[in-house]
Amino acid sequence: MLLDYQSILDTIHREVQPLLREGKVADYIPELSKVSPGRFGMAVYCLDGRTFSAGDADVKFSLQSITKLFALALAFSREGDVIWTRVGREPSGNPFNSLVQLEYERGIPRNPFINAGALVITDILATRFVQAEIAVLQFVRMLADEPAIDFDRIVAQSEQDTAHRNSAIAYFMKDFGNLHNPVASVIGSYCRQCSITMTCAELAKAGSFLAQHGTIPWSGMEILDASSAKRLNALMLTCGTYDAAGDFAYRVGLPAKSGVGGGILALMPGDASIAVWSPGLDATGNSLAGTYALERFTTLTARSIF
Amino acid sequence: MLLDYQSILDTIHREVQPLLREGKVADYIPELSKVSPGRFGMAVYCLDGRTFSAGDADVKFSLQSITKLFALALAFSREGDVIWTRVGREPSGNPFNSLVQLEYERGIPRNPFINAGALVITDILATRFVQAEIAVLQFVRMLADEPAIDFDRIVAQSEQDTAHRNSAIAYFMKDFGNLHNPVASVIGSYCRQCSITMTCAELAKAGSFLAQHGTIPWSGMEILDASSAKRLNALMLTCGTYDAAGDFAYRVGLPAKSGVGGGILALMPGDASIAVWSPGLDATGNSLAGTYALERFTTLTARSIF
Amino acid sequence: MLLDYQSILDTIHREVQPLLREGKVADYIPELSKVSPGRFGMAVYCLDGRTFSAGDADVKFSLQSITKLFALALAFSREGDVIWTRVGREPSGNPFNSLVQLEYERGIPRNPFINAGALVITDILATRFVQAEIAVLQFVRMLADEPAIDFDRIVAQSEQDTAHRNSAIAYFMKDFGNLHNPVASVIGSYCRQCSITMTCAELAKAGSFLAQHGTIPWSGMEILDASSAKRLNALMLTCGTYDAAGDFAYRVGLPAKSGVGGGILALMPGDASIAVWSPGLDATGNSLAGTYALERFTTLTARSIF
Amino acid sequence: MLLDYQSILDTIHREVQPLLREGKVADYIPELSKVSPGRFGMAVYCLDGRTFSAGDADVKFSLQSITKLFALALAFSREGDVIWTRVGREPSGNPFNSLVQLEYERGIPRNPFINAGALVITDILATRFVQAEIAVLQFVRMLADEPAIDFDRIVAQSEQDTAHRNSAIAYFMKDFGNLHNPVASVIGSYCRQCSITMTCAELAKAGSFLAQHGTIPWSGMEILDASSAKRLNALMLTCGTYDAAGDFAYRVGLPAKSGVGGGILALMPGDASIAVWSPGLDATGNSLAGTYALERFTTLTARSIF
Repeated sequence: MLLDYQSILDTIHREVQPLLREGKVADYIPELSKVSPGRFGMAVYCLDGRTFSAGDADVKFSLQSITKLFALALAFSREGDVIWTRVGREPSGNPFNSLVQLEYERGIPRNPFINAGALVITDILATRFVQAEIAVLQFVRMLADEPAIDFDRIVAQSEQDTAHRNSAIAYFMKDFGNLHNPVASVIGSYCRQCSITMTCAELAKAGSFLAQHGTIPWSGMEILDASSAKRLNALMLTCGTYDAAGDFAYRVGLPAKSGVGGGILALMPGDASIAVWSPGLDATGNSLAGTYALERFTTLTARSIF
Repeated sequence: MLLDYQSILDTIHREVQPLLREGKVADYIPELSKVSPGRFGMAVYCLDGRTFSAGDADVKFSLQSITKLFALALAFSREGDVIWTRVGREPSGNPFNSLVQLEYERGIPRNPFINAGALVITDILATRFVQAEIAVLQFVRMLADEPAIDFDRIVAQSEQDTAHRNSAIAYFMKDFGNLHNPVASVIGSYCRQCSITMTCAELAKAGSFLAQHGTIPWSGMEILDASSAKRLNALMLTCGTYDAAGDFAYRVGLPAKSGVGGGILALMPGDASIAVWSPGLDATGNSLAGTYALERFTTLTARSIF
Repeated sequence: MLLDYQSILDTIHREVQPLLREGKVADYIPELSKVSPGRFGMAVYCLDGRTFSAGDADVKFSLQSITKLFALALAFSREGDVIWTRVGREPSGNPFNSLVQLEYERGIPRNPFINAGALVITDILATRFVQAEIAVLQFVRMLADEPAIDFDRIVAQSEQDTAHRNSAIAYFMKDFGNLHNPVASVIGSYCRQCSITMTCAELAKAGSFLAQHGTIPWSGMEILDASSAKRLNALMLTCGTYDAAGDFAYRVGLPAKSGVGGGILALMPGDASIAVWSPGLDATGNSLAGTYALERFTTLTARSIF
Repeated sequence: MLLDYQSILDTIHREVQPLLREGKVADYIPELSKVSPGRFGMAVYCLDGRTFSAGDADVKFSLQSITKLFALALAFSREGDVIWTRVGREPSGNPFNSLVQLEYERGIPRNPFINAGALVITDILATRFVQAEIAVLQFVRMLADEPAIDFDRIVAQSEQDTAHRNSAIAYFMKDFGNLHNPVASVIGSYCRQCSITMTCAELAKAGSFLAQHGTIPWSGMEILDASSAKRLNALMLTCGTYDAAGDFAYRVGLPAKSGVGGGILALMPGDASIAVWSPGLDATGNSLAGTYALERFTTLTARSIF
């Protein structure tokens, strides 16, 4: 049965209105805090080629941590399982002890979606490519079939100016031998990578290969084999939404990756990819209205992986 | 298409032979260490009523932590969402800091599948029922349609004699006001609950309601509504296999709950429930051959939730 | 030069008046919270036999953790250096990680003045004596030459009713094999030991052997040899005032042991022992006016070990 | 009574011979590992002007962490109590959680003798002086009355090349706002400061002002007032010998500061300062023969602060 996603998106768009001012826009980077909390966009990219959208689905926003997913997919596609010798695949538990866990586990981050793990992925890319962040940018341009996707250099600079904690983490891993390139250059690449901006419509399209078992649906190009794509989905489910992965799985039940820019990319394997954006965050750093929208989406479509 | 599960089980049964002596039988309870590491059983309970099995699928083994799933389902079915005020839904991270996390989070365990969380569930059941462990036993007897399922009193006593760490955890939570019944009685109930023995065939049948959206397939009785069943599956995926949940999801890709007796119950929502048992454990406390068997099962059936 | 301690005590007694209501009386045990925060007593026992006092120096108060010093001295005098195989001699750092430190160090508490360490000392005494707390009581009666010193049974009971955290710690150490007697009996002994009440005058006299290199000044009886007494003084200086040992040494510069009843015993080796009591505590759990009084005492007498 | 320190030093020099190859020379900096473990020197500087020495008392060695004491004394003498708003005065507990403690305490290191605290002191000096490490060097030259004291530039460079963990700590504190100068420049100053080399004779003389209540005995110049000097001594006793401060106080009973170069400076307030050097370290990072020599020194002289 072909679901009428449009009316579902419209319903959700209406329902989220009261929530739009409840979240808190990220302010640790001055540039991010300038976004209006009232924005909301959502886009669905079906594997059969149909697309649906609502609200600000064509407005650019800062991907931030969502880029960790694309960087990981790129590194995994090129390097294969060897990346797991340098980064784990387990949820990270409470954030308060992230550094002590890193110490306990001898500089091996728990997973590629926490900052420590993403820095290792950037380091892996920095060893293989001339510039890690350019490789990631070209990768998402190709995945979205949209060459105009770009960094936001003001956000990147703003991020770099306040990257003290990430520098601490990077030096800490270097002390354990798990960072091969110079810290300053890895941090620079990472900050630029995080600043990539996209629209919901572009993001849903870019993520569709993960719903299609690793193959880009509109081109047939295989990015990852089916088994690897399945594994990245599993990783998103257990680790993709910061320290709320358990709660997110409980409420939404889809693999997803979120960012502090307010975006979330979620996947219905074999069916569709969904991008949602609303800049107001909940206490766990995930988009408040975005999470709610996805929870409603799985309820209204009666689709879940469970 | 109806899959021929029997030939798949037979293939797996052959393939696991070399692994059967690689794992390490749990020895923290003397009784458990007496089981031969060469045992292997597997059973599939399809929602259409067909059943398949291989190896020692009719040999009783100690459920241990798998009982946490049934205790949780019972408590959730009776008390509803209020249980989440006393136990969280997040993966627990590295075990080395379980107590400090409990302190940091003011006596609220991270999820109902770590010992601290299971003790809270036992405490909830102890408040509602005359004897918590009897309620759990009757619940699994009903789910498996098998009144002969029982405790192993020698294992229970052996467990209680070495329950110092669980007593520490229980007193710690009591200090935070998150344990209402006397510590000694909660520990006693918990040890007896863990000692329940079942066969793979019984366990697959008992778990089938979680694959059937909360309803017992052979009786039509609703244990949990569809939404609640989906949520328990999500919780199993993110927290069900100790501190290897991420890795297990990565490799197997099914919601599952394991026990140190060597058993694992896994679910293919809308399709079947699978029980596997082999007492040799890997370093994370999950059945080594059992995890491999489930990984092969999802590969050979090409079924996964992702 | 013989100092005129009396005028110094009188000066201090005047000076502390404004501080007497700034501290917070311990309320974790209901009985303790009933004491008036306005009380202040101080007593000096000189090794030449002279005694001085001010304020409520003859009012009984609850020794609480000060009894840990006497229990340790008793255990050390009987068992010698072997006690250091079961308890360390290092400051404990921040309290928030006391349990994780205990785990990291395999059930060996950092020092005998934190609760975990004091429970091990009680356990050692419980193995040697019929009743550990009776042995401690008789020891302090002998040291103070005052047979009427006794437990406060209401405080002891009140303490036992809320001993959940201490029970957690005790079970945790039992799990590591570092507690030999039953947890309930060790906790019971410990709570009664803590409830001993004394006056400042009695306490200063009871502690005088530690200022006199291990020998009771008024009887010549050797409790500890000079080297052992020196070592206990060193331990008091580094670990005797909870997590404020560094700050206390910085301000006061004398070995001391404090209790949440508001008492502090301090030592001027070769010179005198000083007891002070005021029930209002500062944020670190030490008597606010008592710490100030000792700081003034070392300033006005120009005596310090440094 | 004037003690005959010379015969005591000669006795100790004989006694330590069997210990000289038991310790382990620090190897985390290649340059340090080149020193022969058989070296041993000891020097006593009496406040009455007499000096005594034994063994390699005139051989230069790398001060390393002992420079933290001089940097602290310099900062304290110039800035006064305001430094305690940026660094604490408490022992640090077990090293395994140094970073989590720093996080828990919002970037305020526990004391100025752990690396984090010493970096803050360097930062304070870097704000006041053109170059922090030059200021420290000139300070020790003046204290020792020896203008030839200098950095060891090879050690400094070697140290800087492996300063990843210190860089991590510095960035971490910068994230909390507790580091005002650029991380790279603070790390550079700190590494050079640590590389200062001195002989035992020079070190004992340089430290003598701390035994003389803050005043240089041979010049009468006041570096710190008596109260401040007393306080630094207290801090050395509780925090001066890494994570063995409790054990060191227990065994030796003198305020002291050690370094991984194998040196220790110890103080007998009102009497003398003592420097000892032997490069073989024990498990806690303190000179094995040096600690033993000081323990014997307090026993043979029957002098202790306790």
